Amino acid sequence: MSPERGTRRERTRRPHRLRRGERMIAIAHALQSEPYRVHRLSTFVEALGAAKSTVSEDVASLRRVFERFGLGRIETLSGATGGVRLVPQRDPTRIRRLAEELAAKLSNPARLLPGGFLYTSDLLALPSVVEQVGEAFATYFADRRPDVVLAMEVKGIPVAFMTARAFHVPMITIRRAGRVTEGPAVTVNYVSGSSRMLQQMTLPLRAVREGQRVLFIDDFVRGGGTARGVVDLMREFRAEVVGVGVLVASREPRHKLVDDYFALLVFEGTDRRGQPVVRPSDQVLAIR
Amino acid sequence: MSPERGTRRERTRRPHRLRRGERMIAIAHALQSEPYRVHRLSTFVEALGAAKSTVSEDVASLRRVFERFGLGRIETLSGATGGVRLVPQRDPTRIRRLAEELAAKLSNPARLLPGGFLYTSDLLALPSVVEQVGEAFATYFADRRPDVVLAMEVKGIPVAFMTARAFHVPMITIRRAGRVTEGPAVTVNYVSGSSRMLQQMTLPLRAVREGQRVLFIDDFVRGGGTARGVVDLMREFRAEVVGVGVLVASREPRHKLVDDYFALLVFEGTDRRGQPVVRPSDQVLAIR
Repeated sequence: MSPERGTRRERTRRPHRLRRGERMIAIAHALQSEPYRVHRLSTFVEALGAAKSTVSEDVASLRRVFERFGLGRIETLSGATGGVRLVPQRDPTRIRRLAEELAAKLSNPARLLPGGFLYTSDLLALPSVVEQVGEAFATYFADRRPDVVLAMEVKGIPVAFMTARAFHVPMITIRRAGRVTEGPAVTVNYVSGSSRMLQQMTLPLRAVREGQRVLFIDDFVRGGGTARGVVDLMREFRAEVVGVGVLVASREPRHKLVDDYFALLVFEGTDRRGQPVVRPSDQVLAIR
Repeated sequence: MSPERGTRRERTRRPHRLRRGERMIAIAHALQSEPYRVHRLSTFVEALGAAKSTVSEDVASLRRVFERFGLGRIETLSGATGGVRLVPQRDPTRIRRLAEELAAKLSNPARLLPGGFLYTSDLLALPSVVEQVGEAFATYFADRRPDVVLAMEVKGIPVAFMTARAFHVPMITIRRAGRVTEGPAVTVNYVSGSSRMLQQMTLPLRAVREGQRVLFIDDFVRGGGTARGVVDLMREFRAEVVGVGVLVASREPRHKLVDDYFALLVFEGTDRRGQPVVRPSDQVLAIR
């Protein structure tokens, strides 16, 4: 059976032949539901009952409109494992605007909490905000190609989850020790930057495999003790921490227990009137 | 300045006039990023540099293709506050298929945990799975119109978050007492169905407002003690629990501390060979 005949037969079964716009919507939905996954053109040819050349043109149109509206980069991969995929990539201008908007919202005296922390929970509760933050992390760490995103319970979970979603990889939550665990687990000690107390973090043995590339995402970094603990923990798993991303980094202390991290925002401290000073990080301003 | 003239001027500034498919992609993206939010047609007219009649036709095409591919329902609201919005609505067939696939994966002896629990963490780690579960909850609870989705730390957070995303409302996490809290908080006692021990749950006073409609989403229900605790907690906030949704409900005990809940899956127990029996709930099979 020739592909043409199959296609024609397919068409007769369907209520009406799809228009370009309709095919584009269906293809866009498939690409956006599973970013980074390579979709073979033949899948779309079958599902949409259109010729391969038509689907190729649909994808070309889609690429242009995604680029124009900053919705991500559609890549075509040739060869035996070829196809198309969506690399979620936020426009630098939009990442900067997001950071500026969040900085403005966080620069509010009512947000100061005891111990030099900032109240961010209301922003981290908003799916549309968290989705944008996750996509900003996925843009910044795009070339690190993580296999898994790690979160430390509790507050960093949504941001880590939306970062994992943008990379289309699993999100695993590290628990504080003493909580329920599932099967054999690895536990390490760490010094929390906030409490200066010795604490423990734990992860089931089956959660991360040897050789995996791990991205750690959290809501706040001060001393870097938690991130340091995650690096130690991953050493026990023989996994590699390929990046650390946080929503807010506090300026003090200057020396952190982890060197290489990306922060969307920097909490500089309070000004003379007792107002918290939060601004986009130099790293955000440098994204090209 | 007439709208027509504005439109023409807009066009000259742009590289090329957008085609229907391109406009549809842009409109679809706006609707999907913020489900339930009403977008005025005039916003699209301005952003896309197209006539209102053209945008109306785009929306009509979009409605047809969304319906055909089960991507949700696009509603047009008339009047002063009119516009279009996307109501995320999964096709019943797809919800059933999702429940069947998850049930098959969970019916595995390696998933039995001490104490009559099921290992579900690996599935709850996958953003594409969790997104579908969240949209299934949003479909089932569509007419309850929640103002906020509540999660109990830790395992239910991603599912609750993706449900909140589908409703475009905030997701708030209830903490176990004794953990760090932010400002004045309300604490209630509850008996955990799993440990039969008296426990405490706590929520900052500013997290939920009086009169709000609250949807509680969790990963597992056995005795219903946690859900009962959430109902008690919300009474203190003078907020109304309009629904309880869980990924898995255990068949035993038959009598639960909460009557009205929706489960995607039911964990029936183990068969003679020691294999866990998990199946789609009657509620899922009854969705129309």
